[in-house]
Amino acid sequence: MPNFSSIPGHGFPADEFEYRVSRAQKIMAEHNFDAIVLTTPANFRYFSGFDSQFWESPTRPWFLVVSAEGAPVGVVPEIGAPELARTWIKNIHTWPAPRPEDDGVSLLADVLSGLPRRFGRVGMELGREHSLRMPVIELYALIDRLPGVEIANGSPCIWEIRMVKTQAEVARIRHICEIVSDSYAAVPELVKIGDSEREACRKVRIDILQRGADSVPFLPGISGPGGIPQIVCGPRDRVIEEGDILFFDSGSTYDGYFSDFDRNYAVGEITDEAKRAHDAVWLATEVGIEAAVVGGTTDNLHAVMSKVLEDAGTLGNNVGRLGHGLGMQLTEPPSNMPGDGTVIKAGMVLTIEPGMEYAPGKMIVHEENLVVTPDGPQLLTKRAPREMLAIS
Amino acid sequence: MPNFSSIPGHGFPADEFEYRVSRAQKIMAEHNFDAIVLTTPANFRYFSGFDSQFWESPTRPWFLVVSAEGAPVGVVPEIGAPELARTWIKNIHTWPAPRPEDDGVSLLADVLSGLPRRFGRVGMELGREHSLRMPVIELYALIDRLPGVEIANGSPCIWEIRMVKTQAEVARIRHICEIVSDSYAAVPELVKIGDSEREACRKVRIDILQRGADSVPFLPGISGPGGIPQIVCGPRDRVIEEGDILFFDSGSTYDGYFSDFDRNYAVGEITDEAKRAHDAVWLATEVGIEAAVVGGTTDNLHAVMSKVLEDAGTLGNNVGRLGHGLGMQLTEPPSNMPGDGTVIKAGMVLTIEPGMEYAPGKMIVHEENLVVTPDGPQLLTKRAPREMLAIS
Repeated sequence: MPNFSSIPGHGFPADEFEYRVSRAQKIMAEHNFDAIVLTTPANFRYFSGFDSQFWESPTRPWFLVVSAEGAPVGVVPEIGAPELARTWIKNIHTWPAPRPEDDGVSLLADVLSGLPRRFGRVGMELGREHSLRMPVIELYALIDRLPGVEIANGSPCIWEIRMVKTQAEVARIRHICEIVSDSYAAVPELVKIGDSEREACRKVRIDILQRGADSVPFLPGISGPGGIPQIVCGPRDRVIEEGDILFFDSGSTYDGYFSDFDRNYAVGEITDEAKRAHDAVWLATEVGIEAAVVGGTTDNLHAVMSKVLEDAGTLGNNVGRLGHGLGMQLTEPPSNMPGDGTVIKAGMVLTIEPGMEYAPGKMIVHEENLVVTPDGPQLLTKRAPREMLAIS
Repeated sequence: MPNFSSIPGHGFPADEFEYRVSRAQKIMAEHNFDAIVLTTPANFRYFSGFDSQFWESPTRPWFLVVSAEGAPVGVVPEIGAPELARTWIKNIHTWPAPRPEDDGVSLLADVLSGLPRRFGRVGMELGREHSLRMPVIELYALIDRLPGVEIANGSPCIWEIRMVKTQAEVARIRHICEIVSDSYAAVPELVKIGDSEREACRKVRIDILQRGADSVPFLPGISGPGGIPQIVCGPRDRVIEEGDILFFDSGSTYDGYFSDFDRNYAVGEITDEAKRAHDAVWLATEVGIEAAVVGGTTDNLHAVMSKVLEDAGTLGNNVGRLGHGLGMQLTEPPSNMPGDGTVIKAGMVLTIEPGMEYAPGKMIVHEENLVVTPDGPQLLTKRAPREMLAIS
């Protein structure tokens, strides 16, 4: 792996997309697909480079068709055409949207009908960890317009494509992880006892932006005496108090790529019990990082971390897994859990996320991000200190 | 309408949700639904008050069931149960997620099977301006598990419910509109000729947060000589130059409610042609605001604004409509466009968004947000000055 310590710019050269598409076409053939149709922001951007915040508006569907040969084809609302034309996508069909009676469906059906048929199957985002970004009734209408074509579950194929990252993708994840690492290190200067969770989050959010992140879509800040009951909601108006553990997690982005890792802070004096639990989870993280090697499995990642947590007396945790894939989304396949069965490959970016409830309602969760290389795991985050940073 | 000039807090009292649900139950009966099932963040939050940034993770589906009587029922991953239990939702079913072989589907089917059947129909988010937030293959599995129950398109029913806002909702939209209005007024102090669009956006994003917004999911900053070719993508690395028009749009949020309005800035000296176009669009906005009255229609809003733009020599625009609904999402039904046919009611919050291309690739778009009251339209934004603010 080259050294990515310099800051990557925004956007990728066309050969990055050409590589992604040609690799995808091989995988699509293995899945017996003549084409895949992408409707969701990350998948659309992955193959096109199209960057927009306009996905916030749920009104208009957008389609990108990756077929067995050549560059992808865009089927998009007129409002998006000028900017899509600035990417490497040159074959663009548009319709005047919104058009409730036919919002792109007939146009998409025409494009799909014109493709060579080898398998008679088109993959769409119908499966796990995908929410198709078009009305289901319009999916039904599309299926009706394509007799003889099977609209099948393309999700396993799409995730197989995206699960292994290119070096340019890894460079962006590393960059955002470094930004957030530096911000986490500054938290003891930013946050004080007596701040509300909401105020604390606002400070950290602004700090992450000032350090160069593009956006901070995910920043729960959660506090509780000696630990926290959950890790997904917050901030609230709760005031941070002596004896608390303050938890920040952050999915921040740079050029479309996410960080996803957390940190715990000791607010004033905390109990020895909390310190011991923190240390156990820190050690479980060490073991998880070491096990993220080519040829290992996500089941084994879970097993080795669980062993450490169980030896430390965990009561369990409600997260349901001990880490996952990371890239253009906050969480992506695979899942570090029993039965996931993913064999780890070079280029996978994973979160290592052990957590334990050491007393009822008192949970401590750690998380680091890494890329798997042929030479072993390479940390993308700046490793959490073994002893929690203190807030006063 | 009461005066909402004081800052609303975060969260709503239970009686707000009781009111929403009882009104929804009446509308559901008119649509012949025994229940509606909500999977998307805004709909889930609308009925439960559940606030989380964890929706960023696409891994686990969440379900909220609103039936003909009583409070909604949650069917959620274990990871979300502690926080959902802190809302007014007390009937909560959980499963250990992720569980790929059955991620909540059998549990949801059990809950739906246990409901009284009057119509034999359950509405889900299958229609326009909705993307069901669960895998389509799991929707198919749910349908298979519910013989005798029709899973129908609940979107028209759900949008009818959400389209009319309560006073507490309007207070939040007003608050975020005021924050963003103040930030827009400060842009001439924040942004300078020679800044890149990206730098300009970062400054404005941080300013909006410092003024009290919870998040800024949508902030395109776009510049171009005398106007811009599109309004949905950006910022880029382009440097802002003398003669440009700089355009900011923002969907910022407070307590789950969005602003959605834009502003144009003259960078140094701009042409008289651009000034004239700006004035025409400003006047079209005036006319649009005046027409947003109880009993009016969204078709008429489009007609009266179009007349002004056509008289001013518009070449058209690629947005496809001249404004829309606004609330928990950046854009919501209705659409101000021919054929939309929505009759305007008190409590609707609308954007008035005329735009015109006055020369090829040079578009000027204005936008304001208002609430319709029995006494006429009430602006939620601080009206854009008739003459563009200048950046030097």
